[in-house]
Amino acid sequence: MYRTHNCGELRKSDIGKQVSLSGWVQKMRDKGFMIWVDLRDRYGISQLIFDEQRTSKDLLNQAKSLGREFVIQIDGEVIERASKNQNIPTGDIEILVKNLTILNSSTIPPFTIEDNTDGGEELRMKYRYLDIRREPVKKNLILRHQITQQVRKYLSDSSFIEVETPCLIKSTPEGARDFVVPSRTNEGEFYALPQSPQTFKQLLMVAGLDKYFQIVKCFRDEDLRADRQPEFTQIDCEMAFVKQDDILNTFEGLIVDIFKKIKKIDLNKFPKITYDQAIEKYGTDQPDIRFGMEFVELNEICQHKNFNVFNSAELVVGIAVTGGNTFTRKEIDKYIDWIKTPQVGAMGMVYVRCNDDGKFKSSVDKFYDQTDLKNIAKKTNASKGDLIMILSGDKNTVRSQLSALRLEVAKNLGLRNSEEFAPLWVVDFPLLSWNEEEDKFHAMHHPFTAPKPDQIELLKTSPGSVKANAYDLVINGNEIGGGSIRIHDKSVQEQMFKCLGFTKQEAEEQFGFLMNAFQYGAPPHGGIAFGLDRLVAILGGSETIRDFIAFPKNNAGRDVMIDSPSKISPEQLKELKLKQDL
Amino acid sequence: MYRTHNCGELRKSDIGKQVSLSGWVQKMRDKGFMIWVDLRDRYGISQLIFDEQRTSKDLLNQAKSLGREFVIQIDGEVIERASKNQNIPTGDIEILVKNLTILNSSTIPPFTIEDNTDGGEELRMKYRYLDIRREPVKKNLILRHQITQQVRKYLSDSSFIEVETPCLIKSTPEGARDFVVPSRTNEGEFYALPQSPQTFKQLLMVAGLDKYFQIVKCFRDEDLRADRQPEFTQIDCEMAFVKQDDILNTFEGLIVDIFKKIKKIDLNKFPKITYDQAIEKYGTDQPDIRFGMEFVELNEICQHKNFNVFNSAELVVGIAVTGGNTFTRKEIDKYIDWIKTPQVGAMGMVYVRCNDDGKFKSSVDKFYDQTDLKNIAKKTNASKGDLIMILSGDKNTVRSQLSALRLEVAKNLGLRNSEEFAPLWVVDFPLLSWNEEEDKFHAMHHPFTAPKPDQIELLKTSPGSVKANAYDLVINGNEIGGGSIRIHDKSVQEQMFKCLGFTKQEAEEQFGFLMNAFQYGAPPHGGIAFGLDRLVAILGGSETIRDFIAFPKNNAGRDVMIDSPSKISPEQLKELKLKQDL
Repeated sequence: MYRTHNCGELRKSDIGKQVSLSGWVQKMRDKGFMIWVDLRDRYGISQLIFDEQRTSKDLLNQAKSLGREFVIQIDGEVIERASKNQNIPTGDIEILVKNLTILNSSTIPPFTIEDNTDGGEELRMKYRYLDIRREPVKKNLILRHQITQQVRKYLSDSSFIEVETPCLIKSTPEGARDFVVPSRTNEGEFYALPQSPQTFKQLLMVAGLDKYFQIVKCFRDEDLRADRQPEFTQIDCEMAFVKQDDILNTFEGLIVDIFKKIKKIDLNKFPKITYDQAIEKYGTDQPDIRFGMEFVELNEICQHKNFNVFNSAELVVGIAVTGGNTFTRKEIDKYIDWIKTPQVGAMGMVYVRCNDDGKFKSSVDKFYDQTDLKNIAKKTNASKGDLIMILSGDKNTVRSQLSALRLEVAKNLGLRNSEEFAPLWVVDFPLLSWNEEEDKFHAMHHPFTAPKPDQIELLKTSPGSVKANAYDLVINGNEIGGGSIRIHDKSVQEQMFKCLGFTKQEAEEQFGFLMNAFQYGAPPHGGIAFGLDRLVAILGGSETIRDFIAFPKNNAGRDVMIDSPSKISPEQLKELKLKQDL
Repeated sequence: MYRTHNCGELRKSDIGKQVSLSGWVQKMRDKGFMIWVDLRDRYGISQLIFDEQRTSKDLLNQAKSLGREFVIQIDGEVIERASKNQNIPTGDIEILVKNLTILNSSTIPPFTIEDNTDGGEELRMKYRYLDIRREPVKKNLILRHQITQQVRKYLSDSSFIEVETPCLIKSTPEGARDFVVPSRTNEGEFYALPQSPQTFKQLLMVAGLDKYFQIVKCFRDEDLRADRQPEFTQIDCEMAFVKQDDILNTFEGLIVDIFKKIKKIDLNKFPKITYDQAIEKYGTDQPDIRFGMEFVELNEICQHKNFNVFNSAELVVGIAVTGGNTFTRKEIDKYIDWIKTPQVGAMGMVYVRCNDDGKFKSSVDKFYDQTDLKNIAKKTNASKGDLIMILSGDKNTVRSQLSALRLEVAKNLGLRNSEEFAPLWVVDFPLLSWNEEEDKFHAMHHPFTAPKPDQIELLKTSPGSVKANAYDLVINGNEIGGGSIRIHDKSVQEQMFKCLGFTKQEAEEQFGFLMNAFQYGAPPHGGIAFGLDRLVAILGGSETIRDFIAFPKNNAGRDVMIDSPSKISPEQLKELKLKQDL
């Protein structure tokens, strides 16, 4: 027994008790005749005291030898603290130490173990085991634990069964790149790591398990963008005998429960908009609706004048920024510069100031008179004191540019409050998207997604216009989850593979087992998968998933702590019958 | 909405209700004018009824078109059943069908979906999604779910935090073979899949997380023996500031809780024996103690006579089989033949019958008189009516032979009751085991296991005799879990690597990050890992883990359902800069 109590639990009511504590030396104050030590463990901090009058000389000297992050065990008496510390729960007491054992010493850590550390990101990653000692990182990992526990409880209480699906599966060319695992015992063959347990969970529905979930590691060998990880965790779910609304209701219930239990926040009923509406109103299928500034299309009002930029544009579209007329000219120019950066790529921006006197001032006064500008203001619902920002161009391009601008303005105005949460469902995604390069359709969601029930016939005549029975959950502009009703009919699945350009043989080779399963009484089914890393990050008030993963990899897919990936031995390669071809 | 109720929940109190059900056609009885259908889903079976008098002709005909495993939806009224079925909870009612929708048809399944199926193992594996429809397999998966939920609840309630450790890690030559994953973005380098999260959980202790657990997939590229899987699941745990007893108490609590909550069984306090005792008394470190027949060493009594077989043996050792004197000569000969099979490999067996008249009859009466045999009986605690079985030979060999015999006899006598559970702790394992082939020590547990505290010095002088601070949990002769107190001191860890024949450079290359971590205040810590597959199997009354895994692989490491592993495309190989060298 190294301790009778942890460092976070002693209170005034414990005064007089003989206790043992263990932990790390967080801080020392040495006044010569008196030494205070802050002793830290996962649960909190307790103050230890050694002093000339009440402590043996040897013990005092031993205490003087301690350093930051030493691991010690002490025995002592809980006494009342002379000057209380209101900031910590143990602040009323301290422990007068009678015995001190140094369990392990520590060299000076490469960065300070404080809430605000002096360590840079790479250094903290290399010494992640020290970084986790810091309260903010530790708190994130505990939050993640609490969320997964609550997810499991909610789903289990709703009759879902957690089933482990295999991690060594089969490579399929569909979608992103697979990580592969050479098989030593099956010469020349490879397993693949799953990008998701998609086909397995569908098979579990065919198997009659009715309600399945799994919190599961998935893998994607992508060229990493910022804040992507080669391995990530999904809350993966599937239900049989359901329609879209059954799924939305069930998993809205899950998310509401998590926010209630973990954050003590009551979420309202989630709004539901179609993919087309989302694109029109926000220029993205992941809209942040914590704030307004919805897109207003202005072609009709703007394209009757001599302003060629607008006249030649496929779409003229604007947003009204409430109170935006306070922006200085310099601030507006900054936005114009910003949208011209390559990451946004716009050619320019038109703005209309709505002055307090009811007059308008625009960057295109040469082309539009006060009546025109008034109409624009009316259409965009702008009031006195607002600023209207207008972009124009090719539909898809201008929408994504204005979406970026909308978020940038909102960020600067403090409208993206990380303690406010605005979830919504985006539904009716297109089933297929045309890939110019490959000159063929790709599945927008995945090849198992069902068309809207009344559009199955359209699949043969006009596949590009078919909407899917697919849905995403978006919170604060982040896609948190996505799913669909699946195809459960063999002939529809065959038609779908055909639309995606699979030959019969390719479809058979890769997904024969699934289509085969569909012959033996596959029930209607559908599901959803949530990105756990992202969900936890959002609940933790951050958008950086790396902060919520115990041992993340960097942007090059490396674990800098253990230095992985790494070379393997020639013997290993030989056993696997592989040669490097660098 | 495909249903208002599931197929397992309607009762007498529901009579008169209009309901919708969905499920699979389990069975049909067609009397021409009347048709009964057993409709099955995960939750149970409900009987549907169609009859001439109360059902439209069209509907009756539609019902006649149904076949086994068709997926249907029906609307109808709950009515009282004429002849009740006491065997199922819904046996008091049936549903008079008013509407029938065929959601999906089914071709004839390759084996019957019944508790006792006619399908062989390979066939059932290939169509695992049909096998899972069978009650016994479904029940196993639900049991697994219940156990993992309860494990998580118990550990969370005990302040453990579940932390996900990475799946793409670094290959180390220590222990079994790693599966490796070529990295495309880090040319010429490989990740490895974890055999266990060992080093990560130790780092989490250095990180101050105090109590960690994870239910986690692990991977081992071994030549598969029966009932081994290349991917398997561990309940992985670690605690800081603990000694051996703290860990045994905590996890005995976990196992007791699982048996109590899942099986309604109260386990007694687990006995604790040392590794040496286990070997002496049972010839194995995984003793089945549901029954007695403990080994008794007989050298002293047996080696004074002219029986050379015994005189020349390192060890003469026997067991008393209670009531074994009822064995016929033929039965005894069968045991003798059995122990001579290559899998056991003994040369022969001596037996002593303890007759009811107090006399003894042995297979070595030529060498031993009644007094000798009486002494043997006394020493082995054999009574009238018992049979003593004696083997001799080289210590290690004879012990493992007698262990096999003990289990075989117990099996035949029905002493290995799968509904009886006898857990015990085996402690104080040797730290190292000598590997003749490689002419060096191997770690018996793993290289991070601490020696018993008073034997650290012995590591330098007599490493082979050092006992480890390591323990196994054994239930019914199966190792369910194992763990150890870890080394937390850098110099002891260096000494350990030295004993294992690592050069300084090798140790640094492979475990530098861990030894580095030990410099920054590593607390004393230890842990345990349970084999979830095995634990669930034992609780499910079986010893075959495959029955408790949703999608297991066969003995060749193949998933015969999805046909994996498989070839990958030349493009994939090229991207990975690999060539096959078959």
